[in-house]
Amino acid sequence: MHRFLYSLKPASLMRTNFLERLATAQRRADSVLCVGIDPDLERIPDAVLVGKEPHEAVLNFCREIIAATHHVACAFKFNFAFFEALGWRGFQTLELLLDEVPSEILTIADAKRGDIGNTARMYADAIFERMGFDACTISPYMGRDSVEPFLEHPGTCTFVLARTSNPGGNDFQTFDVDGQPLYQRIATSVREWAEHLPATAGLVVGASDLDALRALRREAPDMPFLIPGIGAQGGDARDVMRAASGGPIVVNSSRQILYSSTRSDFAEAAAKAASETAASLPGPPG
Amino acid sequence: MHRFLYSLKPASLMRTNFLERLATAQRRADSVLCVGIDPDLERIPDAVLVGKEPHEAVLNFCREIIAATHHVACAFKFNFAFFEALGWRGFQTLELLLDEVPSEILTIADAKRGDIGNTARMYADAIFERMGFDACTISPYMGRDSVEPFLEHPGTCTFVLARTSNPGGNDFQTFDVDGQPLYQRIATSVREWAEHLPATAGLVVGASDLDALRALRREAPDMPFLIPGIGAQGGDARDVMRAASGGPIVVNSSRQILYSSTRSDFAEAAAKAASETAASLPGPPG
Repeated sequence: MHRFLYSLKPASLMRTNFLERLATAQRRADSVLCVGIDPDLERIPDAVLVGKEPHEAVLNFCREIIAATHHVACAFKFNFAFFEALGWRGFQTLELLLDEVPSEILTIADAKRGDIGNTARMYADAIFERMGFDACTISPYMGRDSVEPFLEHPGTCTFVLARTSNPGGNDFQTFDVDGQPLYQRIATSVREWAEHLPATAGLVVGASDLDALRALRREAPDMPFLIPGIGAQGGDARDVMRAASGGPIVVNSSRQILYSSTRSDFAEAAAKAASETAASLPGPPG
Repeated sequence: MHRFLYSLKPASLMRTNFLERLATAQRRADSVLCVGIDPDLERIPDAVLVGKEPHEAVLNFCREIIAATHHVACAFKFNFAFFEALGWRGFQTLELLLDEVPSEILTIADAKRGDIGNTARMYADAIFERMGFDACTISPYMGRDSVEPFLEHPGTCTFVLARTSNPGGNDFQTFDVDGQPLYQRIATSVREWAEHLPATAGLVVGASDLDALRALRREAPDMPFLIPGIGAQGGDARDVMRAASGGPIVVNSSRQILYSSTRSDFAEAAAKAASETAASLPGPPG
């Protein structure tokens, strides 16, 4: 009865198909590059920090990064941890920044949430309706009722963690389950769950395991892959693109672009790094 | 060099051993009950909602619940999703509420975060240092570097998802990996990783799978278990306690206590439900 209170912005009512919007954004930018927004106070240039509260410095830094790189980016991925580390003002900063992303560029909430059904619904509401993100990342460990509520917001995409490129990605994700790696079993389930739901399901697949990229692409020819791990986390761009080819991809780079310079020319340096990264990736399909 | 900016509250410097504090809190309350704070606008009594902004209603509701139940609770577990669904004001409300929990009662951030090392550090900083929680929940899917940063905050406890009691808990967690269920393999790894780190590692183990409780207790005799699933999610209290006996436990109940009445007597009803739940559980060890 109070349902409306959670949905002040019925953002999903105005959204068209996610994959069409992604294709449009990639054509406009002529790039599959996503710029990851991970504003780290330890790495933000002194020139931005001096005389500012931390959340103000983060706001100014991210604003300049967005303005400097949006022409070559199909999406911006916001890493929630770096905003939450600033407390509620960090969360407020995130909301302010979202309003500044040009509408033709997609926004990804990199929040990696994962909880039981009634709680997953709250997280999905927060991300897709209140904040109005186009996409998000989630963790699959709690299974179907932790995933499905995210797939009930039309026009959005939820990228489920499958094979990640951090060192710990080798701890559990590659466990053999009846002859298949765990990440592949998860991908199969997610693809099946998504079939009867209105939103798009995607997978997070790191750039460091080309075999996993190929296997998951065979498993899920049409699912969009969010691929971090180009740049700071390693992974040759062309090999990655070849392994994931045949379906939609979004390739993320964060630190290599954001902290390309630690001086007051950081925005120009970020623009240059973003352009170079975009140029190192084959263009979008079509 | 700007490291200090993230640690405005060096809360962990003032903390003593988590398990000792838990034992003290459980003796004081004469209970292993944790009250879960999941403030759902759809279920908060009309009397609290009328004429209020959503975040104000949530603040008032939770304040009254905390005041009414703290005498029988060893801990309060805050479900982040329900605060994030209100945007930055929800996050602010969470911070305000934390300041109101009596210091002898432990606070658990039920946030289920899980991300690569540098991001995990930010989430851990946010939860343990900035917000000053005593404990939190995390997801293990991304492996060691996603877990260890949480275990570097002395005096805190990080409960890692092992076996959950939601329907989707059966999708992946029970996969057979070389003769053991996945959740057990994860528990073994977490226990090993924690050995050389200053904080306490615990496990989230649902109340609905008694075999899992017994197996995990054998695997980890000293690790604290956070056990949701008493009440609304099912699970007989005495069977659960017997299966998990021999090591520290915290038993959570949320909805059954919070929404015991939907009228203006909700706080009295919550106090009664909390007392009854606490009484249904065997007392703390010692």
